[in-house]
Amino acid sequence: MLAYFCFMGRIKTTNSQVTRREIIIEKAAILFKEKGFKAASMREIADVVGVEAASLYNHIKSKNELLNIICFDVANRYTQKMEEVESSKLSSLAKIENLLRFHIDGMINHFEEVYVSDREWKHLDNPYLSNMQNQRRTYRKRFAAIIEEGVKKKEIKKIDVATAVLIMLHAIGGIESWHRSTQKITGAALEENMISFLIDGLKKI
Amino acid sequence: MLAYFCFMGRIKTTNSQVTRREIIIEKAAILFKEKGFKAASMREIADVVGVEAASLYNHIKSKNELLNIICFDVANRYTQKMEEVESSKLSSLAKIENLLRFHIDGMINHFEEVYVSDREWKHLDNPYLSNMQNQRRTYRKRFAAIIEEGVKKKEIKKIDVATAVLIMLHAIGGIESWHRSTQKITGAALEENMISFLIDGLKKI
Repeated sequence: MLAYFCFMGRIKTTNSQVTRREIIIEKAAILFKEKGFKAASMREIADVVGVEAASLYNHIKSKNELLNIICFDVANRYTQKMEEVESSKLSSLAKIENLLRFHIDGMINHFEEVYVSDREWKHLDNPYLSNMQNQRRTYRKRFAAIIEEGVKKKEIKKIDVATAVLIMLHAIGGIESWHRSTQKITGAALEENMISFLIDGLKKI
Repeated sequence: MLAYFCFMGRIKTTNSQVTRREIIIEKAAILFKEKGFKAASMREIADVVGVEAASLYNHIKSKNELLNIICFDVANRYTQKMEEVESSKLSSLAKIENLLRFHIDGMINHFEEVYVSDREWKHLDNPYLSNMQNQRRTYRKRFAAIIEEGVKKKEIKKIDVATAVLIMLHAIGGIESWHRSTQKITGAALEENMISFLIDGLKKI
C-alpha cells in the first residue's frame, strides 16, 4: 500500500522519489476523474496529497505531465496485453475473452486511471495528443482484426466487426455506473456476467 | 421538415408558434450536445436559429426551460414505449428486442435530443431534477423486470439483470462514436448488428 509522505526539503533516495511520484499520480487520477482535468488545479492535487503546492514541482513539472503519465501508462498496459494476446495460440474467441477480462479488470480495479485515460486524453498537448489518437485507433483495429479472424474461421458469427468492438468497449465502459450504484454485485460476479453476455453475443448460435 | 423563421414582431397563429418553438428546441439540442448545457448561451441559440436574442424570450422563458422540454420530451417517449411493450403479448425476449430497437432508433435518428437528455439532465433544477432521477430509475427497473421475467420463463439465461441492463444501455450509448466515425455502416445495418449481438448475448445457448 502506498503511504502518505511528508516532504521535508531533504534529498531522498530514488526509491522513495518513485513512491512519492506514484502517490501524486494516484491522487491526481482520482481528482481528474472527479472534477475533470481542466477544472482540477495543482493546488488541489497538493492538498489531497498533503503537501505544499511548491513541493509538488519537485516531482512533477506540470498538470499536463500528470495527464501524460496517466494516459501513457494505461496505453502501455493495453498495448502490452494486446501483444501478449495476439502472439498466443488461443482461439479467436478466447483471445477476445482474454482482452475483455483485462478491460473489465481495469475498469474495476484501476478505475480512476482507466477512466481518466479514456475520457480526458483529449486534453493532452501535441505531440502526445496525436500519438494517443493513433494508439487508440491502432488498438481498436487490432481488436477488430481478432474478431475478423474469428469470423473467417467460423468461430464467431458474421457481424460487422466495428459494431462488435463498439458494443464491447462501451458496455465495459458502463462499469462506471456499477461503481456509482448502491446495491452492487461483486466485481468478480460482474466480470462473469459481462463475459457470459458479451462472448455469447459473438458466438454462432 | 422544419423551416427557419424570421420573427417580425407580429402575433402569429398557434400552429406557427409551435413550429418556431420546435426549431428553437431542435437547435438548442444540437448546441447543448456540442458545447454542453452549461457552456451554451441563449445568445448562441438565437444565433443558430437566426433571430435576435430578445425574440427567443417570446417563445422560451429560459435556457433551463429548454433543457426541461428536451429531457421530459424524451422521457415521455420512453415511458410511453415501455407501457406499450409491457402491455403487449410478446415474449420477454421480443419485448427486450422491441425496446432495444427503440433505443437504437433514438440514438440514430433523434441523436441530439437523446444525447442531451441522457448526459445533461443533471443540470435540471428541482423539482425537475428529482423527478427525472426517479423516472430514470423507474425505467431501468421496469426494463430489468422484463429481463427477470424472461429468466424465470427460461427464455433468457441466468444473468444478473442489473448487469444486463447496464451492458445493453451502454452499448447503445456507444452509437455516439458511430456518429463520429468516418467509414460507417448504415443505420439499418448498425441496428441489425447490435440486435443480433445483444439479443444472442441474452439467449440460453
